[in-house]
Amino acid sequence: MSLNKQVKIILIETTNSGNIGSTLRAMKTMNFTQLCLVNPKDFPSDAVKTMAANARDLIKNINVVDNLDEALKNINFVVGTSSRMRKVPWPNETLQNASPKIIKEANKKSNIAILFGREDRGLTNEELQRCNLHVNIPANIDYPVLNLSMAVQVICYQLYVDGMFNHEPNKSEYWDVPTAESNHVNRLIKHFIDVSEQLEVFNRGNPRQIGARIKRMFTRVGLDEMEVNFMRGFLAAVEKKLKK
Amino acid sequence: MSLNKQVKIILIETTNSGNIGSTLRAMKTMNFTQLCLVNPKDFPSDAVKTMAANARDLIKNINVVDNLDEALKNINFVVGTSSRMRKVPWPNETLQNASPKIIKEANKKSNIAILFGREDRGLTNEELQRCNLHVNIPANIDYPVLNLSMAVQVICYQLYVDGMFNHEPNKSEYWDVPTAESNHVNRLIKHFIDVSEQLEVFNRGNPRQIGARIKRMFTRVGLDEMEVNFMRGFLAAVEKKLKK
Repeated sequence: MSLNKQVKIILIETTNSGNIGSTLRAMKTMNFTQLCLVNPKDFPSDAVKTMAANARDLIKNINVVDNLDEALKNINFVVGTSSRMRKVPWPNETLQNASPKIIKEANKKSNIAILFGREDRGLTNEELQRCNLHVNIPANIDYPVLNLSMAVQVICYQLYVDGMFNHEPNKSEYWDVPTAESNHVNRLIKHFIDVSEQLEVFNRGNPRQIGARIKRMFTRVGLDEMEVNFMRGFLAAVEKKLKK
Repeated sequence: MSLNKQVKIILIETTNSGNIGSTLRAMKTMNFTQLCLVNPKDFPSDAVKTMAANARDLIKNINVVDNLDEALKNINFVVGTSSRMRKVPWPNETLQNASPKIIKEANKKSNIAILFGREDRGLTNEELQRCNLHVNIPANIDYPVLNLSMAVQVICYQLYVDGMFNHEPNKSEYWDVPTAESNHVNRLIKHFIDVSEQLEVFNRGNPRQIGARIKRMFTRVGLDEMEVNFMRGFLAAVEKKLKK
């Protein structure tokens, strides 16, 4: 396991470029190096360099992309940061409980993304529904609003500390097939919803928020590649029947 | 125990007033409210308000003082933040190990100060020698340089989390006399060094850094008020003999 190589920090639609610089510095102090920006509002900018201080060597490694799908390429496990409660409850852990789970996933050689949302509005519901796990930083109930780069600092600190004491997984944690890529799971979900629509199962008194519930089910289970392939084959077979 | 009431964050000679604002925000997110500034270089300043965001209600509570003695008034347990190694090794713990000790001290009703040094040079040796415990935030060995307010955020986070799970002390931790005030211990140390000089024990092949070693001994032990009083009486008696 190498957190440095396996963990990617993703900032979505960051407004304040100083926060990008502070994030780089925060990351570097905890030995993280991979930063991806989805559709940043002010980048490149001199403020990045200023706030990055002696982490400015990481600026050239920044990966800038247009959308989350691109950012999640080759990622197996997606963690979303959020302090808000959702209509459809998602697997959600405090940072000190989430961190060992993330380390465990890293031990399975998975690539991990940690998503941070906009300064003012955080992550959208759609983005949160791409996540296998939501993490919240325990905070003052009256003012839980950490600055963006502060949140990065705290999460990187906790992962760094837990990673230091990491022991390779014991046999009971052994899994024979790699965790599926996030984008593969996402395509499976779309496929499943598509087939469900063709089957018209959505019109027969389904519970509310059914789309979110399906996404939650498929992200929570932690599918491996073989399971994804099997399910895709299953859905294709159903579709074939429907076209007849 | 109430961390909020018992813990005071002390920033020494802060240069960048934006850091003071960020510190307030970081503190408030983890439910800390007491900030003391020792000889700040740029305060008051608009940058404090800007960076404090919705923690600006704490600005009016800030206590500004000239020197560390004043800042440590009524404080029983002093924690210094430092990533540097010292000539004379001091009790030093990583944050995750230091935090439960600080909580334990809080359970004894002690008032606690956490000292943060200058942006560029941290704490002086003299300031570090006022501390009962040094804490370091585990960090990248090649770049352990957290921004000042980031360090406040991480430490407040760890204390907040550990404080959440705090149970009142069990009987084996019971102590009958309160921990001595830091300034009382400091006066004892000065007295002891003074008497040692009168006794001319410093000239007889003492180990190097004897001053630091004496400070370390008296801060490490965690003296209670009665012990300090006894020692002061002891030293006074020695002095009386010397004057005869």
